Amino acid sequence: MLAVVLLSGGLDSATVLYQAKADGCDCSCISFDYQQRHRRELESAKAIAQSAAVLEHQIITFDLSQWGGSALTDCSIDLPSDRSLTEMAQTIPITYVPARNTIFLSFALAYAETRSAQRVYIGVNALDYSGYPDCRLDYIQAMQEVFRLGTKQGREGQAISIITPLINLKKTEIIQLGNHLGVPWEQTWSCYAGGNIACGVCDACQLRIAAFTELGMQDPVPYLKR
Amino acid sequence: MLAVVLLSGGLDSATVLYQAKADGCDCSCISFDYQQRHRRELESAKAIAQSAAVLEHQIITFDLSQWGGSALTDCSIDLPSDRSLTEMAQTIPITYVPARNTIFLSFALAYAETRSAQRVYIGVNALDYSGYPDCRLDYIQAMQEVFRLGTKQGREGQAISIITPLINLKKTEIIQLGNHLGVPWEQTWSCYAGGNIACGVCDACQLRIAAFTELGMQDPVPYLKR
Repeated sequence: MLAVVLLSGGLDSATVLYQAKADGCDCSCISFDYQQRHRRELESAKAIAQSAAVLEHQIITFDLSQWGGSALTDCSIDLPSDRSLTEMAQTIPITYVPARNTIFLSFALAYAETRSAQRVYIGVNALDYSGYPDCRLDYIQAMQEVFRLGTKQGREGQAISIITPLINLKKTEIIQLGNHLGVPWEQTWSCYAGGNIACGVCDACQLRIAAFTELGMQDPVPYLKR
Repeated sequence: MLAVVLLSGGLDSATVLYQAKADGCDCSCISFDYQQRHRRELESAKAIAQSAAVLEHQIITFDLSQWGGSALTDCSIDLPSDRSLTEMAQTIPITYVPARNTIFLSFALAYAETRSAQRVYIGVNALDYSGYPDCRLDYIQAMQEVFRLGTKQGREGQAISIITPLINLKKTEIIQLGNHLGVPWEQTWSCYAGGNIACGVCDACQLRIAAFTELGMQDPVPYLKR
């Protein structure tokens, strides 16, 4: 079975790639250079794709910074740091990039149809990022309808399925799954801050560090501050 | 009311822009440079946006030719020419670009949310292009759900509406509407072939020429062959 895996280079998408392989899929990966401040993640995506011996790895380039509106694409907006986990879960943060997963899934759909793939894997997670509207199940179900009705394959009864292995997992459970699947954590990159060493204080670093700590594990990625 | 209008530079999207203005909207336009062979249409899009005095015109660049699969993005695939109108209406043609409208609408959604716009206008048409899965009403309704569930604005009860003024119109009716609205036909570009003068034989040229002829009008765009 052919699958397209959305691979950001982070801990979640790396786990999803290894899950897709464990599901018996031959995987092609797609990543995005959208002028995100943490473009460093693309180096991680490339390394992970290589470690996982994927069929192909496509990087799509476009510029979401041209209209601003998010701390992830507009460096004049300060990145939140040192927020509590509760605070992160309750609001839609300034790191929200309007319609980002919709754009990502659209390209994945196009790529999957071009390759006659049957599945698209995405590492959305409704628990740790409950503030993001485009990480929830009802949203994924709406995109599934678009996958069915918006393509030739779907109209012919062969709709490409969106698979979300992490949607109901906590970060600690994702790490446990990844441990089981042999994900190379040292190759992953989660930090939003845009440096060459993970900052340790942005939302993404904090969620990750807290989960490794809770499991009594050492996160192999070095941090500026922790 | 603020609206984002998907403007390809063709006859349909130009008419949609003028309709959005007639509906009382302040319009920002979005166009795409996706390495389509008929990138000439972007010059038309710029001219039309200027004539219509829009607020902003954003051109998003990415490369859909990198994975091939369509005659519109892969110049090694021959473009169909001299097909009958019946033939065009019955099959999904090789000019179909997988998930193109989904990608376009996703970017329009992102742009609209960044600008707090209430509407996205798109010139899809279910009659002349019935072969395209992503031009039909059920597909648009599925995208509308994505617009509602996949954005902060939508989750807050202010979903951005997709407006499709042309969905049930024949090409002749679109031209009649455009005549009424004062669309500058001489600035529009429909040809798929990639030259600097419209070819007159590709599907897009033929549909357009047939409609002007049926109305007893002279299409102001020059053609290599007609």
